[in-house]
Amino acid sequence: MAEHKKLHLTAFMRPVSLHTGAWRYPGSYPDANFNLAHLKSFIQKLEAAKFDAFFMADHLAVLNMPVEALKRSHTVTSFEPFTLLSALSQVTEKIGLAATASTTYDEPYHIARRFASLDHLSNGRAAWNIVTTGNPESAKNFGLDEHVEHGERYKRAREFYDVVTGLWDSFADDAFIRDRESGIYLDPEKMHVLNHKGNELKVRGPLNIARPVQGWPVIVQAGQSEPGRQLAAETAEVVFCSPRDLDSAKALYADIKSRVVAAGRQKDQLKILPAALIIVGDTLQDAKEKRLHLDSLVHYDSAIASLSINLGTDASVFDPDGPLPKDIPETNASKTSRAGVLRLAEEEGLTVRQLASRYGGYSGLAFVGTPESIADQMSIWLKEEAADGFTVVFPFLPQGLDAVAEKLVPELQRRGLFRDDYEGTTLREHLGLKRPGNQFFS
Amino acid sequence: MAEHKKLHLTAFMRPVSLHTGAWRYPGSYPDANFNLAHLKSFIQKLEAAKFDAFFMADHLAVLNMPVEALKRSHTVTSFEPFTLLSALSQVTEKIGLAATASTTYDEPYHIARRFASLDHLSNGRAAWNIVTTGNPESAKNFGLDEHVEHGERYKRAREFYDVVTGLWDSFADDAFIRDRESGIYLDPEKMHVLNHKGNELKVRGPLNIARPVQGWPVIVQAGQSEPGRQLAAETAEVVFCSPRDLDSAKALYADIKSRVVAAGRQKDQLKILPAALIIVGDTLQDAKEKRLHLDSLVHYDSAIASLSINLGTDASVFDPDGPLPKDIPETNASKTSRAGVLRLAEEEGLTVRQLASRYGGYSGLAFVGTPESIADQMSIWLKEEAADGFTVVFPFLPQGLDAVAEKLVPELQRRGLFRDDYEGTTLREHLGLKRPGNQFFS
Repeated sequence: MAEHKKLHLTAFMRPVSLHTGAWRYPGSYPDANFNLAHLKSFIQKLEAAKFDAFFMADHLAVLNMPVEALKRSHTVTSFEPFTLLSALSQVTEKIGLAATASTTYDEPYHIARRFASLDHLSNGRAAWNIVTTGNPESAKNFGLDEHVEHGERYKRAREFYDVVTGLWDSFADDAFIRDRESGIYLDPEKMHVLNHKGNELKVRGPLNIARPVQGWPVIVQAGQSEPGRQLAAETAEVVFCSPRDLDSAKALYADIKSRVVAAGRQKDQLKILPAALIIVGDTLQDAKEKRLHLDSLVHYDSAIASLSINLGTDASVFDPDGPLPKDIPETNASKTSRAGVLRLAEEEGLTVRQLASRYGGYSGLAFVGTPESIADQMSIWLKEEAADGFTVVFPFLPQGLDAVAEKLVPELQRRGLFRDDYEGTTLREHLGLKRPGNQFFS
Repeated sequence: MAEHKKLHLTAFMRPVSLHTGAWRYPGSYPDANFNLAHLKSFIQKLEAAKFDAFFMADHLAVLNMPVEALKRSHTVTSFEPFTLLSALSQVTEKIGLAATASTTYDEPYHIARRFASLDHLSNGRAAWNIVTTGNPESAKNFGLDEHVEHGERYKRAREFYDVVTGLWDSFADDAFIRDRESGIYLDPEKMHVLNHKGNELKVRGPLNIARPVQGWPVIVQAGQSEPGRQLAAETAEVVFCSPRDLDSAKALYADIKSRVVAAGRQKDQLKILPAALIIVGDTLQDAKEKRLHLDSLVHYDSAIASLSINLGTDASVFDPDGPLPKDIPETNASKTSRAGVLRLAEEEGLTVRQLASRYGGYSGLAFVGTPESIADQMSIWLKEEAADGFTVVFPFLPQGLDAVAEKLVPELQRRGLFRDDYEGTTLREHLGLKRPGNQFFS
């Protein structure tokens, strides 16, 4: 592998922290997901730290949850990604702006147009996180009784991608002449009418906006299912995934990269950025205590339900402050997630309450430690081809973000693992991705 | 009528100038519809001039036109309204931000959410121009072969409005408690699940964003058809219309206001703002020459087609530089528009070429004169209840806008016909509109 390979870092903001206890953490902003001044300061700090992108994930519904969980959840309300990122494009200059948009509950003409517009407004910083929107609550907000079946969603997503990228190529880069003397505004020979008629979609075109600054906004994909991996291999330039540990990350990395090559693409034109919760402490013990404190802010009523789901058995009958019983029976639930709980209980010596809090808070991949220890880990992930960088999940705002920007990033920079400054102006340039040619005009 | 009644002024930007010759006018910006720096300077000048709102109209297609017209048209490309207005919200503080959004080719959940988000991002400055999108090119970009029939579009629009406003009321204004101590983020009793099941739409809700700052963004409507007027009377707070002259404006004004009262609403809670092209000159002659010059920049090939349509006969057979023949036969085309052409030819003594340029450029209501003469006219329209203000169409940018901001507005202010400064911070406050209560929570 190349000597100078560096990490890419994006910030996962949904709604600001994924951790449901985050808003209660001392010194955090309880309204951080819904206060533009805070969001401005976050993105400006991330830009000062030279992050590749600010990633606004999304849902198209208030997610269904028991009222006891709902009333404690800060995930209910947040800004809509396009309006938010367009606003933030005006208070930043370099950092990428990635928005989630659904292929199941939106129209390719709208999606193509909004991303093209965001790309122009931001001078080439837009990215589209393609999601197929699996949750049934969203379906009910769009006229359906049940959510669209998985395979069907992925078929539409693949065709949707073709239509959107086709629409982005509606005009050659030099279509607009604007010659005042002759009165010729555009060269009609350099306008392409898509006339797409597929199994899922019928879209005429052309798009009513000039080709995006980046040619195409950067394509992001998060699916880890079989069709998700294949869609990513064929279309994605950034994959955001959730491996449990280094070994599973390496296997996923190898699988996706080999699919990329099989799809006739260059391996380095798809970057794999696992999501990782990062908690930076002055010492390892300090970082672990921060995490336990944060987890303890998740209410037991909502936490225990998450633990039960992962164990496949009702965990509310156990003593909350005792250890997890040894004799938990296997059920029809996922063996992988049950084994994960048992391993975690063993490794960290957590009580039932602490385990519940972990699952009710954030149970995915986490780097908890000092700047040095986290940089060590990230370096290993990069060198062992488990990741091209990370999708950073912050534990609480603003302190968790400040610690990453002010302590971890400088440590990574000292080691030559992260850029000291942006070298280009577009997100494609930050990520080392080529600007795609226009498929209809060379 | 009240002694202190003042005009309301909004700026109609689509794509910047409606006049197809505008981009060729000496000193204008040929890329004004697609250059963010220019658009920022326009909105900042309009805010300095205390305009009520910046109004970004929209189409969902490259409109179908003969290639000879297409290649000369600057209307092909522009920013998408939500992304543009969100960006502009960050470089302004007071001016309203009105966006066109279609009820035929979009989903109420998306529309409700984006306007709510824009309203929050702008601290209460959003307005929704409800359009039903009549042009067939749009239908073809959204999977249809033909455009949706007029009556059907209006049925859906009416129900769509109910759903969107219902979704805006998903949360009581005081639903979000955010009490860190108890861990209660929101009061579930103050969340309403819409569960709308109508003839046209089925939407569950709730919306995943807090109630807009203005309660509801301001509702704008432009239809002048029978169902359009009725929809406006029942729902609109601003009506943007295109009367030909003072008398027809008075009739339209009286009709819509009486429908408003019949619908059980207060007359002053709907403002009627006719669209008017405004060309300010140092003298009347100067202003008229500017207009003729502007019209002359419309290419004859595209202009003559517009004249033929309005006359109902092929005008390309006439001598371009002679007067309009007297003996033009009546056809099946609109008698009103034919009569309008004949009257214009008579009143202004225009040649066939000049008439064609007028129809190929902008043939709607225009105030062409000095700041004093235009202020005189506007004063009459206000006093005689033909208008509550105007939707200003600029002939060319930036000079046409500068002249309105720097010459006409000060003249209106001297006469007490327009505000000297904003008195509030929200668009509702600028327009004198009440903040609607929440229909589900009092």
